[in-house]
Amino acid sequence: MTSIEIVEVGPRDGLQNESVVVATVDKIELVRRAVSAGVRRIEVASFVNPKKVPQMADAAEVIAGLPDIDGVTYIGLVLNVRGAERALATKVHELGAVCVATDSFAMRNQGQTAFESVDVARDIIRLGLAEGRSAQVTIGASFGCPFEGDVSPDHVVEMAKRLADANPREIALADTIGVAVPSQVTDLIGRVRDAIGDIPVRCHFHNTRNTGLANVWAAVEVGAATIDASLGGLGGCPFAPGAAGNVPTEDVHYLLDRSGVATGLDLDALIAANRWFTDVMRKPLPSMVARAGGFPQNIRSN
Amino acid sequence: MTSIEIVEVGPRDGLQNESVVVATVDKIELVRRAVSAGVRRIEVASFVNPKKVPQMADAAEVIAGLPDIDGVTYIGLVLNVRGAERALATKVHELGAVCVATDSFAMRNQGQTAFESVDVARDIIRLGLAEGRSAQVTIGASFGCPFEGDVSPDHVVEMAKRLADANPREIALADTIGVAVPSQVTDLIGRVRDAIGDIPVRCHFHNTRNTGLANVWAAVEVGAATIDASLGGLGGCPFAPGAAGNVPTEDVHYLLDRSGVATGLDLDALIAANRWFTDVMRKPLPSMVARAGGFPQNIRSN
Repeated sequence: MTSIEIVEVGPRDGLQNESVVVATVDKIELVRRAVSAGVRRIEVASFVNPKKVPQMADAAEVIAGLPDIDGVTYIGLVLNVRGAERALATKVHELGAVCVATDSFAMRNQGQTAFESVDVARDIIRLGLAEGRSAQVTIGASFGCPFEGDVSPDHVVEMAKRLADANPREIALADTIGVAVPSQVTDLIGRVRDAIGDIPVRCHFHNTRNTGLANVWAAVEVGAATIDASLGGLGGCPFAPGAAGNVPTEDVHYLLDRSGVATGLDLDALIAANRWFTDVMRKPLPSMVARAGGFPQNIRSN
Repeated sequence: MTSIEIVEVGPRDGLQNESVVVATVDKIELVRRAVSAGVRRIEVASFVNPKKVPQMADAAEVIAGLPDIDGVTYIGLVLNVRGAERALATKVHELGAVCVATDSFAMRNQGQTAFESVDVARDIIRLGLAEGRSAQVTIGASFGCPFEGDVSPDHVVEMAKRLADANPREIALADTIGVAVPSQVTDLIGRVRDAIGDIPVRCHFHNTRNTGLANVWAAVEVGAATIDASLGGLGGCPFAPGAAGNVPTEDVHYLLDRSGVATGLDLDALIAANRWFTDVMRKPLPSMVARAGGFPQNIRSN
């Protein structure tokens, strides 16, 4: 693997669980800064019930305010057909559907069983593709569930197979509550890749138990095409007890760049964006690379 | 790899860089709690200049106060022959010598070039063995230097070879400033193992840039016998700008245990020790597993 795609999810997953509702103008600026740092795919909003997730109530306004930039893809997250229709009324380039791997969690997250969430995701993907947009899907809680504990890999593979029928741009495996370890990542990605043919695998890790970066590396080594990351490392799920932040974009970039895997991102620009974002959020952000800096180059000459 | 040894370094590396000087009685209690949680080798103190590192001034008192427990090894860190003699005047079981991989850092840390630090470490090892104690050595800054940047793997291998002549119990590679990435860990451990025959490799990682746990996993996969970790994840080096905590014992245990690699440690006891230690230090500790808890088992039946 000599290069990898990073999807910036800070404007959506990074903000949806924060007690502060970030202003629309600041969300747009966050996207702008991520693009300036080299990001080419960004999850910019979610079209969910604004009563349940008020942090995302301005989804249409955020997207209306985004600059059109050649080669940059904006993703809107949707949980149902109504959300997909709202998203398709905007200029968003790509729909991101969400399934959940266990019935208990899927019921709390979106009022469906796991396989019902697959059916809905297939409808969303087909609707998006029919409207000329890109569409993909994430299987949440693929590595463990806050309510059920272990999740059967065979079950996740079966969900992925059914999703593949709808021809999504990619299928993502999400460790929504941050319980995965690298050997599990290697195993599950291998099984899913074997089951879905040419469809690329994206991975979404939360760093709840300090294994997030180890899981990113395992995913890259076993052939994941794309990694989700969040500037600063904010993130969480309103319906997942104990979930902590996404893997920080700065830290994922450091890991991959020092490993000889190109990300297309610029660390100085990411750290500058982190400083601005820290001011917006008025609290320290989890990214460790933003605090420590990159590899100490050319120190001797200072 | 079905099991791994964890050396608890909290009482030494965890405390040596803290602004609060922890009371002798609390250091002894920290050791006692680590042993209760299953730890069998512990770095309990360092015999360094008390004017430079006042946090370790009570090394002899700490060791005098430790309980004698079958199968438990107490390690004292020493930087020179004088420190070794002080350590040998106590009941400490094992001397831990320290070299540093670059001249700039070795000079600041202990007033020697890198190869001079090797000569001193060999003297310390031989002195310890002659006195019937165990002895080992750590090569600091093996993966990068705060003053020189990149460190040549060939140079680290040459240091390891010279150290192996003194027949230490093990040779450790330390990422003192937390810059390593897994591919580098795999490469360097492989080279060092090839060069030192049957002498086991221990690894010491700091989680300064969020890659610590990824490096632990890479080290375990490539055959490191032992991993250093610090309860709560405190740690740092007084002479290494920007160094952050050791990999937390709780988090390393979680990673390995969920990967099917036995550590001999008990997570509940580690988390209880973390709560007590947090009260002693009067601040949140970096361990994420202590905050989030282990894998959500049997949640459904609650």
